[in-house]
This record gives sequence, C-alpha cells and structure tokens, in this order.
Amino acid sequence: MPISQPEPCDLLLLPKWIVPVRPVAQVLSQHFIAVSAGRIVAIAPRSELHNYRAAETVELAEHVVLPGLINAHGHVAMSLLRGFADDLALQDWLAQHIWPVEFKHVNADFVQDGALLGIAEMILSGTTCFSDMYYFPEVTARACRDVGIRAQIATPIFDAPSAWGTGIDDYIKRGLALIDDNRHSDLISVVFGPHSVYAVSKASLQRVATLAAELDIGIQIHLHENQAELIQCQSAEQCRPIELLETLGLLSSKTQCVHMTTLNDADIARLKRTGASVIHCPLSNLKLASGLSPIAKLHREGISIGLGSDGAASNNNLNLFLEMRQAALLAKLSSNDASALLAADILTMATLGGAQALELDEHIGSLEVGKAADIIAVDLSAPSCQPVHNPLSQLVYACTGKEVSHSWVAGRCLLKDGQLQTLNLSSTLVAANTWRARLSPHSE
Amino acid sequence: MPISQPEPCDLLLLPKWIVPVRPVAQVLSQHFIAVSAGRIVAIAPRSELHNYRAAETVELAEHVVLPGLINAHGHVAMSLLRGFADDLALQDWLAQHIWPVEFKHVNADFVQDGALLGIAEMILSGTTCFSDMYYFPEVTARACRDVGIRAQIATPIFDAPSAWGTGIDDYIKRGLALIDDNRHSDLISVVFGPHSVYAVSKASLQRVATLAAELDIGIQIHLHENQAELIQCQSAEQCRPIELLETLGLLSSKTQCVHMTTLNDADIARLKRTGASVIHCPLSNLKLASGLSPIAKLHREGISIGLGSDGAASNNNLNLFLEMRQAALLAKLSSNDASALLAADILTMATLGGAQALELDEHIGSLEVGKAADIIAVDLSAPSCQPVHNPLSQLVYACTGKEVSHSWVAGRCLLKDGQLQTLNLSSTLVAANTWRARLSPHSE
Repeated sequence: MPISQPEPCDLLLLPKWIVPVRPVAQVLSQHFIAVSAGRIVAIAPRSELHNYRAAETVELAEHVVLPGLINAHGHVAMSLLRGFADDLALQDWLAQHIWPVEFKHVNADFVQDGALLGIAEMILSGTTCFSDMYYFPEVTARACRDVGIRAQIATPIFDAPSAWGTGIDDYIKRGLALIDDNRHSDLISVVFGPHSVYAVSKASLQRVATLAAELDIGIQIHLHENQAELIQCQSAEQCRPIELLETLGLLSSKTQCVHMTTLNDADIARLKRTGASVIHCPLSNLKLASGLSPIAKLHREGISIGLGSDGAASNNNLNLFLEMRQAALLAKLSSNDASALLAADILTMATLGGAQALELDEHIGSLEVGKAADIIAVDLSAPSCQPVHNPLSQLVYACTGKEVSHSWVAGRCLLKDGQLQTLNLSSTLVAANTWRARLSPHSE
Repeated sequence: MPISQPEPCDLLLLPKWIVPVRPVAQVLSQHFIAVSAGRIVAIAPRSELHNYRAAETVELAEHVVLPGLINAHGHVAMSLLRGFADDLALQDWLAQHIWPVEFKHVNADFVQDGALLGIAEMILSGTTCFSDMYYFPEVTARACRDVGIRAQIATPIFDAPSAWGTGIDDYIKRGLALIDDNRHSDLISVVFGPHSVYAVSKASLQRVATLAAELDIGIQIHLHENQAELIQCQSAEQCRPIELLETLGLLSSKTQCVHMTTLNDADIARLKRTGASVIHCPLSNLKLASGLSPIAKLHREGISIGLGSDGAASNNNLNLFLEMRQAALLAKLSSNDASALLAADILTMATLGGAQALELDEHIGSLEVGKAADIIAVDLSAPSCQPVHNPLSQLVYACTGKEVSHSWVAGRCLLKDGQLQTLNLSSTLVAANTWRARLSPHSE
C-alpha cells in the first residue's frame, strides 16, 4: 500500500478536550482539529494526526475547544454607558438617563469607540459572532469587518427621529443601503431591526414586513420584554404583542423575538407554529426587573433559543459565559426543578441555537467539517475550574469568561494567549475614558 | 512651627479610588491608606502623604481598594466535587451522588487538599475571610492559619455518624477541642455548626443551645433552605423551622441563619426581635431550585445580611463577586422593582454585613482606622470594566472576580499582582487532579 503524503493545512489545534456541540453533550479527548482556508477540514483522533502538515500548530494542553459563542442580541456601542445609571426602574432609567444622554452624545464617533470597546470585551470572553441593533449600524459593521469578528446587524427602525435618522422613511432607506453595502460580506449579515411594537407604528411594521418578504431578509425585534409592554398593547390593540406581530405578517421562521417574558400557552403555540426563534437575555431581564422567559418549556417545544447580553447599560457585561450560567439557573428557579435544562442544552443555546436564530447555522454554531472555523479555546487550569470532572459543567457553571485564551473567526486568529490580535486595545481604552469624561464629567 | 518627622509605617496603598464601605456608598479619590502592625492607621487625602514613611508603597493606579470580601457560608473542601454531579434535583443529588462519594472518600487528606484549592480560589477572587462548615474542621483551620486567611469555623454537629464523628457526643467533644485549640488565634474563630433542624434532633439542639450560652459562642445553621424542609418540620413539629429554633433557645443575636427562603412576616419578625442574622447564598439557592430569600425586605427591616457561596458542588464557584451580582439581580426580580437594593447595599452585605453576622465587625468589614488591614485591590482597567462612571457599579455589576489583583489579611500580603504569595498553587492543583482521578476515574 503506498504511503500517502500528509495533507497541507493552515492550522492544527491540539486541545485536551473538544466540545463540538453537535452531537449534543459530546466531549472528545485525544482528538485534533484541522483548519484550511477558514473552514474546518477535519476533527479526528490523534492517531490520524500524521495525515496533516500544518503551517501552524497550537498546543492547548489544559483547554477545551468549542464553537465560538454567539451573542444574539445587544447594543454594542452602549458599552460606553456601562454603569452610567444603575438600580433604576425601566421608565426612569430610559427617560431620565439613557435617552437624554444618547440624544445629546450619540454620533458616529461614539458608535465607533463604543463598538470597539464592546467588541474587545466580547472577543476576550469568547464571543465570535454577535447581533447588534443600534444607531449608525454602518459604523459598527465597519468596525466588525476591520477587527474580523462576525456580526448580524439589525438595522434600527423607529417612527421617532434620532441622532441617526429622521423618521421611518429615512430608517428604511438607510437600512436598504446597509443591506446593499454588505451583500458580499463573508462576516456581516443584515436584518431589519424594528425596535418594538410600541416604538414602531402598525403601518411602519407592515412596510417592514413587505420589504423583508421581498428581499428574503430576517427581522429582530424586542417582543414581550415586560409587563408594561403587554398591558399597553392589550389596551391599544386588544391583543398581545406577538399576536399583533403575526397579524401584521411579521412572524415567521425568519423572526427573532428578543426577551419573550410573560408568555402564555397561546404565545408559545404561535412561536412553534411559525418557527420564530427566541433570544433570551437573562441578565438584562433581571436587572430591569422585566421578568423571566420560560426557556425550559420553549426548549421542550423545540423552539430555537439563542442567548443575548443586551446592552452594557442594562447588564453590565457583554459576556456569554455569564448569560449561560444565568440562563441555566433561572430555568431551574422558574421550573422549580434543579434538573431543568442540562449544561449541554445551555451550551447549545449559546452556540448552535443562536446560529439557528440568526439563520447562520449552515456556517457556524458547531464544530463540524465544512463549517467556518469560528472556534474558541478555554483554559480550565485555574483553581476556579478545577478539578475537571466534566468539561461541560465547567463551561456553564464554573467559567466566568476570563478563561478564554484563544479565538478564531473563519480561521483568522483574533485572540492568542489572552491577547487581542486584530484590535488596538490601548487606543480603544483611551477613547472609552475620553467618553467617560464627556458623559459624566464629575465621576472622578 | 517645628516640622514633624514622618511617622514610620509598614505599608502605604495609593489607589485610584477607596471604597471604605462605612459610610455607605462613599467613594474616595486622591486618598491613601497607611497600615502598621496589621492595622489601618490612616485613610487620608494625598496631601497628607508626607506624614508617613513606609517600608513598602504599592501604587494602584487603575484600582479601587475596598475591605476584603467575606464569604459567610460554605463547605470549602467540597471544591474537589465542583461539577461532580450537576443538574440534579436536591434529594437525588445528595442521596445518590454527594453523600455516597463523601462517605467513601472524605478524610483528613481530602479536606486538606480541598480546602487549599478552595482557599486559592477565594483569595484570587477577593475573599479575605470565610465561614466554613465541614468534616475535619481542625484540618481546615490549620490550612487557614498556614495560608494566613481569616476564617470562622462552624464545627459540624449531626446526630448521624460520618467519616469524622461517631455521633452527637463525639461531634460536641471534637467541637469543644477545636474551640480550645483556637482560643488564642487572631485568624480563626469557632462557632457551633448544627447542620439543620432535620439532621440534628431537638435534644441535641438543646445541648448545643446550653453549651453555646455557657461559652458565649455563636452558631451557624442551615435554616429554611427549601420548601421540603419547611413541610417536614411543620408535619413533624407543627411549627416552622425558625419557630422550632426559637423554642429550643437557639435563636439570638449570635445565630447565623443560612439560606432563609420561603419566609413569612412572622419569620421576619422573629429574626428582627432576636437580632439573628441571615446568610444569603443566591447562586446555590438557584442551582438547587431552593427558592428566593427576600433580602430587600430583610434589609429594610434592618436585619444583618451576609453573602455566602455555599459549597462548590452546588454553585460551582467560591466567588463573592458572582454572589454580589446575583443577590442584586434576584432582589430586583423578587421585588418586581429594578431599584430594589443599590450596588452600595449589596457591597455592604459582602463586607460589613458578613462581619456583623460573624460578630467580627469590630475588626473587619470596613476600612476604618483601627480595624485590621483586611484589604483587596481590584483593577478596573480591562474593557469589561470600562469606562468607570461609578466604581460601585463596576464592583457589583461588571466585575467577575478576576479583576482582583492584591489582597492583604491583617496586613500580610496574600495576593500580589494576581499571584498567590502564601499558598503553593502548583502542588494544590496537582493534588486536586489526583482527587479527580480517584473520585471520577473515567472522566478523562
């Protein structure tokens, strides 16, 4: 039998464990991953290592390697408002603090500097893809392309004017331009981001529905965020927010419903029937006392669930490890059952579930041959993660995100030994501090 | 006027901010702290720095300095069981997994190795004092003295035999010996740790009450941990667990009630009347689906509240930063009010509140002249903590514990630039991994 030549590849990863996410709950040891041209070309036992010759080999002796985490909802530039106004009721928080400071200060520079700060934090804590909904989305999209992180941009749509748009016509025009600009991007996908049923009129929502159908484009919307939204909708429209969305033609398998607290059985049936997905933001829901999303039940019903951090003004981190733990624990509390949802289920939500919601699961969300090499390595050697009886448990219940040592997006290394590779951290921090001085001049 | 000589001291800390905890919510900038003979001798404006001449000066340019955190309830050696059996209902978890493995494996070596692992994690995440309740408490006490961390040891009392004791007489004898051994320790205080009203008979609880009163010693007990305990007590004793405790003479200002979920107004009135304190363990309560403690209400009633991690088998971290955030967020959820409890209130629970519960507040829990120099420094320069509009918000809502860079207990440095100074980390990790192989031999 002739001895075959080893196949050249770009990158070989030699971790202690691999958690591919699909199949669920699988933990491989004594395996390796080979990457070429940005894609995974092999996940195989170490005994087959001689079949590959790599430009770069990364030994990860104490690490678990898994798909990069997907932060499926947020407002990244709001990282500049982290801790700006805490411990306040939602209406007071928004009307007295967040909106006035946004109205006065948000511009393209704010979004650029805030996006880079948030992207730095996300890469450092294991996120390789995030969804964003904020003003100046073209600036955020450019920051993502520059740094090399993957993103879904939900181009914001309101009725009211803002620092970025004059009204519904303008928002839609700008959204269409953004879609056009990113048509050929490997990293950026664009969906419509109508803010909510209370901030966008029925007529405007119908226009979005028509356009989304014509262009075959998804939407992401804040839905059933809290009791106040529900009461307002029922009073104004005599129906629940999700019913209104369906009536207006905006509920389909391409719809990403963010928050989804206070759900009844009919709401859940509607999600199931239409194939819409849910983005769960547990920390933000707690911080604003919005309520709990019944994700254990949604999971049993087979609804796609992704996890999101929401913005740093209501969280105050963009860290999917913290969301995973919080999602798991809240599911136990709200189900009154300590066995509600397993660590593996939660890890699926933070990866493949998010990818499904964002309609990116053909490319990302699990480690499989042919998928993009969006990969993170997590070092479990610190006392807080030892001993390792089960790597899945450590990922969901013991890690805090600081254990992430490496990340790659489409095979490009964004983080190496805890150091950012494609983002200038020091200039980002200087810019953030300049904004601090401008936004809260007496804080030091 | 004669120019006075600068006063010699051991240590000068020059941080960006100081949060002394008392007064509540105070943030000092442009101040310094001077330490001599293990105590704080000055907290003063930088303009007075010339009055001191220090053996060592520590510049903390991006740091906030605050009292070391107090982990007021846990089972430190169980860190060896971190992630050993997750996502299980309480009874199954205990009876099928935790108790059998403990019965088979717990001995003095297990406790020594587990205690060092947990102590390493606690120092690295800002804890300078913890309360422990576990078998072989003399081994844990010795580990604390060796490393130099402060601890309250709640010497365990059950009716049933265990690896450490044969029955109630034996537990009490061993407890009294432990009290004697640590009578003159500056770092270790000892209280009685009757496990719970279901694991210790009424006769035994009464013996503990008599002894505690005679010796003027506190007690720590698991109380109102979950609904099952409440139902069992009501069925067996026709009263609620806290009522039973009061009837037996075990409820006083020296009583530390751990967990305290499912409280009614009469329970709260009983706490208030007797001056008993509450130790809140939010993450463990969620993980085991035990319920919520109404700490916003308890706080309004003026009851002393400390925070605890519980053991790493039901958490899975010994990290007070994570408990602070969780306590704050659950208070908002359970109060249905985003303004329930402020960051400063939560920080007080993690420091002075714990010190009051443990009756150590004359010495620790706040940064004040004359108190012990139990101090931590937290580096807020990472993207996840920037920008700093308000250091208090960052400590409670943005930090994950990994930002802790330095700690001192009674002026002795335990952590310097993130490196443990008094504990051999590598041998501790080797020992932990040896236990992993013994406890779950097929996990790798």
